[in-house]
Amino acid sequence: MTISMHSASMPVFIKMLGNLGHWLDAAEAHAAAKKFDPSVYLTTRLAPDMLPFNRQIQIASDMVKFGVARLSGVDAPKFEDNEASLADLRQRIAKTIDFVKSVPQSQIDGTDDKAIEVPMRGGPALHFTGENYLKHFVLPNLYFHLTTTYALLRHNGVPLGKVDFLGRE
Amino acid sequence: MTISMHSASMPVFIKMLGNLGHWLDAAEAHAAAKKFDPSVYLTTRLAPDMLPFNRQIQIASDMVKFGVARLSGVDAPKFEDNEASLADLRQRIAKTIDFVKSVPQSQIDGTDDKAIEVPMRGGPALHFTGENYLKHFVLPNLYFHLTTTYALLRHNGVPLGKVDFLGRE
Repeated sequence: MTISMHSASMPVFIKMLGNLGHWLDAAEAHAAAKKFDPSVYLTTRLAPDMLPFNRQIQIASDMVKFGVARLSGVDAPKFEDNEASLADLRQRIAKTIDFVKSVPQSQIDGTDDKAIEVPMRGGPALHFTGENYLKHFVLPNLYFHLTTTYALLRHNGVPLGKVDFLGRE
Repeated sequence: MTISMHSASMPVFIKMLGNLGHWLDAAEAHAAAKKFDPSVYLTTRLAPDMLPFNRQIQIASDMVKFGVARLSGVDAPKFEDNEASLADLRQRIAKTIDFVKSVPQSQIDGTDDKAIEVPMRGGPALHFTGENYLKHFVLPNLYFHLTTTYALLRHNGVPLGKVDFLGRE
């Protein structure tokens, strides 16, 4: 097998979003063991001018959703960014994975040179080839928000390790 | 152009390690402005059982170094993990980038199915195809240690933003 736009993206999206779901399970178990309300996670930040936990997960979801939509040309589902609990966030992750799985491989493969435009709030749009969009925008952003989520959980005492980040299977 | 093992890895390694160098510049400037010894960064952690700042950077370097070495078959340079200052860490990053640049594209391309063995301390070795090693081990580990480094700097007040994480060029 040779690496392709599909193989370099979709299995990574599905695996890492699945891992994220497991971290939320560990966060919920930790809150239950320590007897605190798990919704306190949602507003934790690593610095006052960084985005809080729930936004990190919403943006990780959006990176994947828009990544798949822009490469494939399939319309992205609309999410309201109104998640108010770990259960809501888990459902957001599941809906994102469902969307990824709904897009056929043939609509991702061959998008290496596709012209991609990413609108930016308060500035000019970014322009990429499909490959550069994947490797210099979608993947680094996805890993950024996933790792920040993981770091917030570790900083708040949730027992996770590198193997949970990478995934056990 | 079509995505390849080289195009999916080497430009990402060079860009992200270069970005890391810029974060260290910002960290040094922040320490100078606040009049504290920049070597205090080296031992900061986000949780007592997470690795400190200097180890995050050493491991990011190792992920790239061993990633390139295992895929290409070129021997990796030996680093002593004895960095004791931001200047030492900056040099470690530069040496890692030099190694990446020394390996010809032809020795990375075509390694999609190459059998890769990753020895693990205290457990059985991991086995991957070249592509799975890149996308499910090297890249997630690299981004994990880079984002954790970035998070440590942000947590310690260094003025950085997402554009610094992704790179400005």
